[in-house]
Amino acid sequence: MNLKQLAKELNLSFSTVSKALRDSHEISVETKKRVLAKAKELNYQVNPLASSFRKQKSRTIAVVIPEVVNDFFGPVINGIESIAQEKGYHVLIYLTHEDMQKEVAITKLLQNGRVDGIMMSLSEQTSDITHLEALKEMNIPLVFFDRIVDGLDAPKVTTDDYNCGIKATEHLIENGCKQIAFLSISQHLSISNKRMEGYLEALYRNNIPPNNALIVACDRDEAKNNELIQELLKRENRPDGIFASVEKLAISTYKICEELQLNIPKDVKVITFSNSYTAAFLNPSLTTVTQPAYEMGREAAAILFKLIEKKKHHSAPESIVLNSRLIVGNSTKGERNMES
Amino acid sequence: MNLKQLAKELNLSFSTVSKALRDSHEISVETKKRVLAKAKELNYQVNPLASSFRKQKSRTIAVVIPEVVNDFFGPVINGIESIAQEKGYHVLIYLTHEDMQKEVAITKLLQNGRVDGIMMSLSEQTSDITHLEALKEMNIPLVFFDRIVDGLDAPKVTTDDYNCGIKATEHLIENGCKQIAFLSISQHLSISNKRMEGYLEALYRNNIPPNNALIVACDRDEAKNNELIQELLKRENRPDGIFASVEKLAISTYKICEELQLNIPKDVKVITFSNSYTAAFLNPSLTTVTQPAYEMGREAAAILFKLIEKKKHHSAPESIVLNSRLIVGNSTKGERNMES
Repeated sequence: MNLKQLAKELNLSFSTVSKALRDSHEISVETKKRVLAKAKELNYQVNPLASSFRKQKSRTIAVVIPEVVNDFFGPVINGIESIAQEKGYHVLIYLTHEDMQKEVAITKLLQNGRVDGIMMSLSEQTSDITHLEALKEMNIPLVFFDRIVDGLDAPKVTTDDYNCGIKATEHLIENGCKQIAFLSISQHLSISNKRMEGYLEALYRNNIPPNNALIVACDRDEAKNNELIQELLKRENRPDGIFASVEKLAISTYKICEELQLNIPKDVKVITFSNSYTAAFLNPSLTTVTQPAYEMGREAAAILFKLIEKKKHHSAPESIVLNSRLIVGNSTKGERNMES
Repeated sequence: MNLKQLAKELNLSFSTVSKALRDSHEISVETKKRVLAKAKELNYQVNPLASSFRKQKSRTIAVVIPEVVNDFFGPVINGIESIAQEKGYHVLIYLTHEDMQKEVAITKLLQNGRVDGIMMSLSEQTSDITHLEALKEMNIPLVFFDRIVDGLDAPKVTTDDYNCGIKATEHLIENGCKQIAFLSISQHLSISNKRMEGYLEALYRNNIPPNNALIVACDRDEAKNNELIQELLKRENRPDGIFASVEKLAISTYKICEELQLNIPKDVKVITFSNSYTAAFLNPSLTTVTQPAYEMGREAAAILFKLIEKKKHHSAPESIVLNSRLIVGNSTKGERNMES
């Protein structure tokens, strides 16, 4: 069954049927209803590529994220997908694997009309934003979430990383920590930097002098991170609190503490940003700042569809900051170490 | 820069340039090289929708999975994506949320040429396979992985669920369990059934009579599952070992044991299928059967591209069974309960 046959069955012209299926204003509601009913009856399906080509609409959005093996991006994708399904859109997923060169290649690929809009969370390495400016210049609807870039005039959906950085650090201070280390994940990454700024602000508010030796620059290299954390915890004046900017660094800290026979929370307390549902069942249960990942995906997708539908991407960008929650476990429990 | 302008710059006809860009045999290698060099120089990009429409190739594959918030499907997607990137393909992700009606709707959507091939892992609810047979009849290249359907003649990539079901059950028996419960996840799901068959086989081999009261039919409803597990563990002759077919049921078991003040592994030992990297840091560390998820994604994608490239989907389906590993934690530790 093709369009020509469908037109014949309906005793209408090819052009009328085609316009009716595209919901053209030139065709009466009556005729549209008749065409749709017949198309359904005869199980006629529009070829989506042909249809997209004619309409210059792909009904597809792209989601560009660093990784998918992660308790954060999973629920984000669920949130995005729930909105895309409502809108009848398809979702392409692209992974950068934290590699800026891959991110650049993906954005180039997306410049030629394959998608109607793009949602991005940047790689750890992304230091230059030329490729993002290029997307922006091409007027492709674009929304950033979580790992954003400040220099670009585009909508952003984030959580309150700075305030949560303060909250997490003050939670450690309230539970008796005096020497708090911060494990960062990338100097280029907005979320890592804002969490660290919150950490420094909390130290300042509590009259604890900041100490550069307690700020550890971790990255993608797990073996190297383990060495850095080991070196940190083997020091004579080792920290009594660790604020891990992301969950994988907290898990590495658990592993190193086990090896060095350090007790959490007695010898060292640990807090991290995490969305893992197993955090509560770790040994000891892990105190976390938990982001509303699903809601972030939904909010970012909702803004993207506003841009796509209204073509308003020249107007002032809409940005949203969502709240995260502190979930207290035993890893920061405030009993003082009786031996020391 | 459009195709017409490019042709003008090259002093060639529109049709020659178009054919050269499509790598037509009608055009000489010399001319193709000249056209490509000029296209690159002028930064000309083929409109992918127009190009796909002409070639009837979308260079896109679809991955249909139950969920993404899961330590198994994350690495599977990574594996698929690594092969798709090598092949220059785009990856569409569709989530069924374990809902058969959604799965049916997605397969209908994919029947009209949007993708060159499909990879699927079925929802928990999928009991009827009419929608899968329809895809098969349309000659769309199709590969199933992990959660497969036996009745359909299509390539399948699985792990050795049956043998691992035996291995997991015998591990509990070796550590002193006499009354082992099995928590299934869906009666429709191949993986759950095969793991249970392995469980029954292990009981048989070890002369332990099977007991229907120890086979608990869990499903998507977490609250209901918690009630079922609670009821199981409150029985006078409660099981001394629990084999959870999927990780979320093991975590529920941990939660219920905490509530009922039952000690794992002293009062009850727990084993599960899981790909979570935090399993080793749970309290107690969780004994798992771990599937090679990343490799499954790669193998399934490799088979799909063979089908797409050779259009061989009428030939005998190629199926692969990969091996899983038993990773022993403290949740099955064999010290006998001294109080009993």
